[in-house]
Amino acid sequence: MKTVLVIAYKGTAYAGWQVQNARPSVQKTLQNAIEATLGHEVKLSGCSRTDSGVHANEYCCHIDCLAGIPDESLPMAINNKLPDDIAVLRSFTADDDFHSRYYAKGKEYVYDIWNSRIKNPFLSDTAFQYPKTLDVERLNEIGSAFIGEHDFRSFMSAHSKITDCVRTVYTFRAERSGDHVRIYTSANGFLYNMVRIMVGTVLEIHSGRIKTPLEEIIKAGDRRLAGKTAPAHGLYLNKVFY
Amino acid sequence: MKTVLVIAYKGTAYAGWQVQNARPSVQKTLQNAIEATLGHEVKLSGCSRTDSGVHANEYCCHIDCLAGIPDESLPMAINNKLPDDIAVLRSFTADDDFHSRYYAKGKEYVYDIWNSRIKNPFLSDTAFQYPKTLDVERLNEIGSAFIGEHDFRSFMSAHSKITDCVRTVYTFRAERSGDHVRIYTSANGFLYNMVRIMVGTVLEIHSGRIKTPLEEIIKAGDRRLAGKTAPAHGLYLNKVFY
Repeated sequence: MKTVLVIAYKGTAYAGWQVQNARPSVQKTLQNAIEATLGHEVKLSGCSRTDSGVHANEYCCHIDCLAGIPDESLPMAINNKLPDDIAVLRSFTADDDFHSRYYAKGKEYVYDIWNSRIKNPFLSDTAFQYPKTLDVERLNEIGSAFIGEHDFRSFMSAHSKITDCVRTVYTFRAERSGDHVRIYTSANGFLYNMVRIMVGTVLEIHSGRIKTPLEEIIKAGDRRLAGKTAPAHGLYLNKVFY
Repeated sequence: MKTVLVIAYKGTAYAGWQVQNARPSVQKTLQNAIEATLGHEVKLSGCSRTDSGVHANEYCCHIDCLAGIPDESLPMAINNKLPDDIAVLRSFTADDDFHSRYYAKGKEYVYDIWNSRIKNPFLSDTAFQYPKTLDVERLNEIGSAFIGEHDFRSFMSAHSKITDCVRTVYTFRAERSGDHVRIYTSANGFLYNMVRIMVGTVLEIHSGRIKTPLEEIIKAGDRRLAGKTAPAHGLYLNKVFY
């Protein structure tokens, strides 16, 4: 049996999910808290890497099944050992062959834009400030070209070595709530930096800096035609679908 | 003439508004940014002290009128010199005899409670976690006893030396939005720690820990009958009335 943990974290202080060099990672911090709770070593596997500074509203990870602590009390027990910026939201038991990464059918990300000329002192780590007023209908019109099955290599970090770049994007939707504009996108999978490049490109098409239609940027398969990578601190892994 | 600045700040990194010992204060940080913008010294006066860790959605302060920079461009110019956790929202000109403290007719505070058994990793500095489910109608019923003119010495820090403790509370209102419960209270003035003791007391009456009715706690004029001082990090100065 596997025990699945659904966690949330503010990524500001971390190098991302994955253990990297000497910088603190969410994975190592959580693993230490689980081991302190249970009194023995565990192997903790996550649903994906996340970039340094990226946040998660719901990230899934799993360990081999735990004896002794029932599911209901496990989140609170681990939370007591975690720093303030990581929380276990809930846990449940899954079959032995479950794997939080390989069983994921898709993911949803949300990119949070603070759309105001005036910075928000409460959101400097958790939303990207964009001063010019955004037209949400126009963002949705532009972004509709993402939807469907495409080769997304134009929207992949040049540092990635992945060769199969075909993914199916299910949704790309901007919503306004006051001075927040949130862009939600879901897909069967995302390439390295893909959501941040998608957001950056849509913003540059919206502002008129990029004249090439999004359809053509996708077809060209050329990272240089797409926009800048939007900053990490606006991005949240929002949901994982199984 | 005076130039009034309306600012917002996240108070986590500061000893409060006022310059204190060697710890950074909002006042000193803002004053440095204004002086760096204008190239000369200024005298900056605020509408009130705030405690260490307390935030402001709208705090008012003023300086002698500035020559050379029109009101519209002043906020952006100062914001460029400020750290991420302080923002000038707007500025305007007032008469020479204006004073942000002595002209204030009243203030509104809001206390933000994250009402969930599970901590929120994004709110550890900006909302107080209270795990037991709160009944907002019950909070409003309890808190209605605050409204009106009373001697509030039961709700003043024992460290305060103020002797005239009569204040008029205009509103005390709890509202739920998802897992947030926000308590708004406005008055012609508040004593030292008054909002935090008001909130702490209402929570302890709600939980049944305190059995004395709020009316009697007010009448007794005894700090020991009131509840604990709620933590600073849930409190925001929300508005100043002139």
